[in-house]
Amino acid sequence: MPRALLIAINGWDAAPWVAKFRARAPQRDIRVWPDETGNPADIAYVAAWKPPHGLLADFPNLKAIFSLGAGVDHLTNDPGLPGVPVARIVDPDLTKRMTEYVVLHTLMFHRRQRLYDRQQREKIWFEHKQAAAKDVCVGVMGLGELGMDAVAALKHIGFDVAGWSRTAKEIPGVVTFHGRNGLDAFLARTEILVALLPHTPATEGILNLDLFRKLRRDGAAGGAFLINAGRGKLQADADILSALDQGVLAGAALDVFPTEPLPPASPLWAHPNVAISPHNAAVSDPKALVDNVLRQIENFEAEKPLENVIDRKAGY
Amino acid sequence: MPRALLIAINGWDAAPWVAKFRARAPQRDIRVWPDETGNPADIAYVAAWKPPHGLLADFPNLKAIFSLGAGVDHLTNDPGLPGVPVARIVDPDLTKRMTEYVVLHTLMFHRRQRLYDRQQREKIWFEHKQAAAKDVCVGVMGLGELGMDAVAALKHIGFDVAGWSRTAKEIPGVVTFHGRNGLDAFLARTEILVALLPHTPATEGILNLDLFRKLRRDGAAGGAFLINAGRGKLQADADILSALDQGVLAGAALDVFPTEPLPPASPLWAHPNVAISPHNAAVSDPKALVDNVLRQIENFEAEKPLENVIDRKAGY
Repeated sequence: MPRALLIAINGWDAAPWVAKFRARAPQRDIRVWPDETGNPADIAYVAAWKPPHGLLADFPNLKAIFSLGAGVDHLTNDPGLPGVPVARIVDPDLTKRMTEYVVLHTLMFHRRQRLYDRQQREKIWFEHKQAAAKDVCVGVMGLGELGMDAVAALKHIGFDVAGWSRTAKEIPGVVTFHGRNGLDAFLARTEILVALLPHTPATEGILNLDLFRKLRRDGAAGGAFLINAGRGKLQADADILSALDQGVLAGAALDVFPTEPLPPASPLWAHPNVAISPHNAAVSDPKALVDNVLRQIENFEAEKPLENVIDRKAGY
Repeated sequence: MPRALLIAINGWDAAPWVAKFRARAPQRDIRVWPDETGNPADIAYVAAWKPPHGLLADFPNLKAIFSLGAGVDHLTNDPGLPGVPVARIVDPDLTKRMTEYVVLHTLMFHRRQRLYDRQQREKIWFEHKQAAAKDVCVGVMGLGELGMDAVAALKHIGFDVAGWSRTAKEIPGVVTFHGRNGLDAFLARTEILVALLPHTPATEGILNLDLFRKLRRDGAAGGAFLINAGRGKLQADADILSALDQGVLAGAALDVFPTEPLPPASPLWAHPNVAISPHNAAVSDPKALVDNVLRQIENFEAEKPLENVIDRKAGY
């Protein structure tokens, strides 16, 4: 019975990953795409990051695919993706890191850190009126593992938090909205918008000028602020710039972009009210990912169900 | 029986406070120092901020003193302070604001925000190694209302949190230390030090070079960081600068200073790894303070105990 695991990594150096897989599972037949793939019929599992379209259709005995990052759009956008289960990584460490980023940038905007930085440069000792967190509405788009953890942390700090998701979700103490029909009401109360959505055909470009215009600007936060730590293709960079120029957005914290690295010519780099980070809001711990994939394979072979299998229709 | 409340405010404009007291308690005889003090024998209560030394000894029928800020050192350092109860303000809104400040600056250091700001100015897309919060040791000095709330929020984010207080305190899931004997062990594990102590003779100047040298510098945070949002007189500014120059401290977030406003000549203003704020980490909501003082007086007159009365020997 085929049991080999193929590591198919595109764009990163695969060597440290392969070493970790082999150290953790010395008994397992572990192959490395492209050079050490061997007989395609031996491959039962693939652990993949951005494999070329069509590659995964080449393995007749494939039983499961594991994404080596939080996103799965690099797999679901492959028209030749085989019909076997695709499992996402749910790494508690990654979730906590994402929440750190979201809380940091929510507080930097809320507490006017950029303004106080400017005052410090000019040696100005002046205190501005400051709203309490309970009077500031934060809205989290996407209520998966990441969104739920961010909601809990923002609530703990004291913000007035709402959530929006594709399908209805109930969170004790949090106002939730769902679907296209619930989006406008969610945006109308949201001053700080946190995007933690997956990239699917339905979410591509959702962070656009039309959406930003529906955010609340006259609330206690003193303007609307965008935090995108989800996927770059959710956002239209040109629309973010227009919204900033028009005062529709007071600022943004962007960790992801449609084109990465963000091109040097992008005016986002130099915008005084934009915080750019190099897609590092939540970096996966390779050891945790390797452990997760191998544990899932062991469970699968012991006829236990795979965890975090994506809904192929929803795309995540 | 004397029932008048005297508002004794020094250094701020008293008028908005007086208006709030009178609006909330139109039946009460409310006097304003210095011009509308009237007969000293009428005064039963004083709500004070930095009253001149000796002033409070002038009222023979004084029953209680209320501090109009979180600190009480402006009262306890008066050698003529009468022996009546002195009540501190405990305002949940103020506590939450302080925690916002502490979490913000802990995360800014932990996530290397200043480094990413510099990279953004130079359009550098580069990701640095990033520790997980669980591997970073934060130590909170002072475990009163403010310290306990900060500990809970930092724990929620995921930091490895310890606490130090004058007397022993137990906090589930948090390592605690106490007294002079427990200080070195607390500092030896602490990478990010959060000072939320009261100003007393025992704490004056406690944040000095000798203490900074005992902090852990080889941990996951990549250096030692100081956050002082307690009282300015806890810290020696010259020692902070020396510690920064010697690499003993990697940076500091300072909201309070021995001399406020921070003098323009202070080198702290221009230090690239220091964040200066104008003593606004936790600004009291005047309405909440006024409500608190009047409710306390009403309870006192109904022979209920006063809340948050300071321990005169401990000084807070």
